Amino acid sequence: VEAGERLRLIETLDHLHPADIADLLEQIDVSQRERLIELWGKDLNPEVLSELEEGARDLVLATLTPDQLSSAVQELETDDVVYLVEDMDEPQQEILLDALDDADRVAVEQSLTYDEYSAGRMMQREMVTAPEHWTVGDIIDFMRASDDLPEQFYDIIIVDPALKPVGEVRLGKVMAHPRTVKLSTLMEDEFRTIPVNQSQEDVAYAFNQYHMIQAPVVDEHGRLVGTITIDDAMDVLEDEAEEDMRLLAGVGDEEISDSTWAIAKRRFPWLLVNLLTAVIASIVISLFADTLEAVVALAILMPIVASMGGNAATQTLTVAVRAIATRDLTASNMMRVVRRELVAGTLNGVAFAIIIAIIGMVWFGIPMLGVVLAIAMVGNLAVAGLAGILIPIALDKAGADPALASGTFVTTVTDVVGFMLFLGLASALLL
Amino acid sequence: VEAGERLRLIETLDHLHPADIADLLEQIDVSQRERLIELWGKDLNPEVLSELEEGARDLVLATLTPDQLSSAVQELETDDVVYLVEDMDEPQQEILLDALDDADRVAVEQSLTYDEYSAGRMMQREMVTAPEHWTVGDIIDFMRASDDLPEQFYDIIIVDPALKPVGEVRLGKVMAHPRTVKLSTLMEDEFRTIPVNQSQEDVAYAFNQYHMIQAPVVDEHGRLVGTITIDDAMDVLEDEAEEDMRLLAGVGDEEISDSTWAIAKRRFPWLLVNLLTAVIASIVISLFADTLEAVVALAILMPIVASMGGNAATQTLTVAVRAIATRDLTASNMMRVVRRELVAGTLNGVAFAIIIAIIGMVWFGIPMLGVVLAIAMVGNLAVAGLAGILIPIALDKAGADPALASGTFVTTVTDVVGFMLFLGLASALLL
Repeated sequence: VEAGERLRLIETLDHLHPADIADLLEQIDVSQRERLIELWGKDLNPEVLSELEEGARDLVLATLTPDQLSSAVQELETDDVVYLVEDMDEPQQEILLDALDDADRVAVEQSLTYDEYSAGRMMQREMVTAPEHWTVGDIIDFMRASDDLPEQFYDIIIVDPALKPVGEVRLGKVMAHPRTVKLSTLMEDEFRTIPVNQSQEDVAYAFNQYHMIQAPVVDEHGRLVGTITIDDAMDVLEDEAEEDMRLLAGVGDEEISDSTWAIAKRRFPWLLVNLLTAVIASIVISLFADTLEAVVALAILMPIVASMGGNAATQTLTVAVRAIATRDLTASNMMRVVRRELVAGTLNGVAFAIIIAIIGMVWFGIPMLGVVLAIAMVGNLAVAGLAGILIPIALDKAGADPALASGTFVTTVTDVVGFMLFLGLASALLL
Repeated sequence: VEAGERLRLIETLDHLHPADIADLLEQIDVSQRERLIELWGKDLNPEVLSELEEGARDLVLATLTPDQLSSAVQELETDDVVYLVEDMDEPQQEILLDALDDADRVAVEQSLTYDEYSAGRMMQREMVTAPEHWTVGDIIDFMRASDDLPEQFYDIIIVDPALKPVGEVRLGKVMAHPRTVKLSTLMEDEFRTIPVNQSQEDVAYAFNQYHMIQAPVVDEHGRLVGTITIDDAMDVLEDEAEEDMRLLAGVGDEEISDSTWAIAKRRFPWLLVNLLTAVIASIVISLFADTLEAVVALAILMPIVASMGGNAATQTLTVAVRAIATRDLTASNMMRVVRRELVAGTLNGVAFAIIIAIIGMVWFGIPMLGVVLAIAMVGNLAVAGLAGILIPIALDKAGADPALASGTFVTTVTDVVGFMLFLGLASALLL
């Protein structure tokens, strides 16, 4: 991008959606990113900021002047400003907050007092409310007179004199009725409020489960403090599924725009954990060094037993983690699901025992080797089923994220059990 | 649940949201499920049907009489009916379709002509449209006069005389302006239509990326045929993330409500694939049988090399699969990301080479064993990085789902390379 092409660039970017510009900024490399932002400068669309991932966003913020920053944030809704401000350090926060007008500043500061990952952080302050006695005509007149309506809203929240929400009316319903109809007669049957301290995960679950579009957020006294719309819930829902997937694979919160160093560093700890667990498996094997020396076929077949156990455990684990996340695995069906996993693991264990026994016998011509392989396979797949379901359940009960039970830990169990069974039986039956 | 308690049961269920009832039905076991549905019978809320997973739904449908079924479907929106009907066999479909009134029947049959997993299947027919010359007053009068407005809609779709959508107006905006204002002056700047044949995945991506709430669906001539709302997109978005996770773990489309037999059968094919790939790794090991017999330490340490490679590959793979799904990995940054994975893999390879070399030397007292381990570790982690990124990219280019590159395949590559390097070097340097 040459300096002379600035105008053409701005024209091109103007046609793109802020989310696409953010993606573009994330995909080009760091030096190109700096050049682009310098060129773009004051014409930066503030909405791009709230679309950017954290790493790329810090870089963009650093290249903006305080003036550019202030004018940018004034155009954003309060929930987007909170999203920007929460990851900043104090002096940067101050600059941004100072740029806001008083009402917005108070709103943002108030939001920041709620826990990160809580409904209080997700909600926006901008909403449309009406007292119970208002009619369709009243709210239409109110909205026509108002010059600061929120950009996104789908419901009118009906509140009582103590500012407690008592119901919500869909905009479509308001418009479908004559001016004299009372709003309170048009309220939805289903009405759910969200406590301001509820976790983002629970909020997203509720939106998804009950097909909600917008919901009022209330403080501990039941008073209305904000509102959450479905697009915020959708972001969280996707994040949660992705987080489970990353945890299962032992990857942290990395982004495709991160540098080589950053990703190498982030993956190191998990690989270190894996090294330690792999060493445990090796120690188990070393107990049977004499047996291995006597029958080298054992060393050759050993990885098959481990691999089958690991895979079967990962299958169960993945299903269990998702079922816990989507609340499909609860106290009422837990025993049934655990029993099912154990039996299903054993069934597949028997099927593969027959296959592997034949492979073992034909390949090495030692019938007893087939028997050892078969028994180890049944035992290992049964344990895989149990470990795959019990470990995430236990983590969940202990208040940890069940996805932490990732491959590495569950696989250690199946490795240890698999090697023990296989080499132990071999010692007893083959020597 | 006793027969006499029927009334109490119905009362309890009446207070639950259909989605919660569906979850309850999925969580109890099959015989309880049958009893409950028999008891509940004609009072069944039709919306429960569209919340159920396929397996549980078939069971519920089977216990309902044709009369119950017909009255149930008449209350549903067309997209929910399509969702129910698409998995049924012909005679059952007929019964359901006959229960609909003519207009709905045509709409449902039309939807069924579109590809499964396409926008045409997701969309609903119920929507509110207005010609370009209408004013705020016109649409309000139209809506007040209409007695069949859709349950969920957030935008008025503005169409030209050829029924092509030209823009959309948010309900909030309509209400905020006087009756004389023309709707065409209130249209959103951003306006995206969805082709009826677009894949569900692409539709969900667009909703998420552009924070859309509702979008018109158009046929190949650009004419309006339906509309998709954000709650439908949210369902798909979650399904897609979950599908990636399941594919990566080698689990099919199973549900927590499936029977033991069903899950054992569904997991078998993937375990069989894994067995074949594990046998390939074993064949590689068998090439070095003499070396293993001579140095039993190799058999003991072998799983560590394989395990580290497998884990590093899974990390890269997971990030790559998600990045492809969210369109963050594109042609423009592909080379950079591939290079990054290779370098990051090598960096961690060097770090762990040092650690593992020390472990190898101290444990077995053979300095050269440390050297062999170190070289194998660097090579294996570098290959893990490459395989983890290149295999999903290749699958994507070939038009397959990149998540198919699951653990099993990528791990085979790292196993084979790891064993080759480790045992090959050992043969050369230790014997």
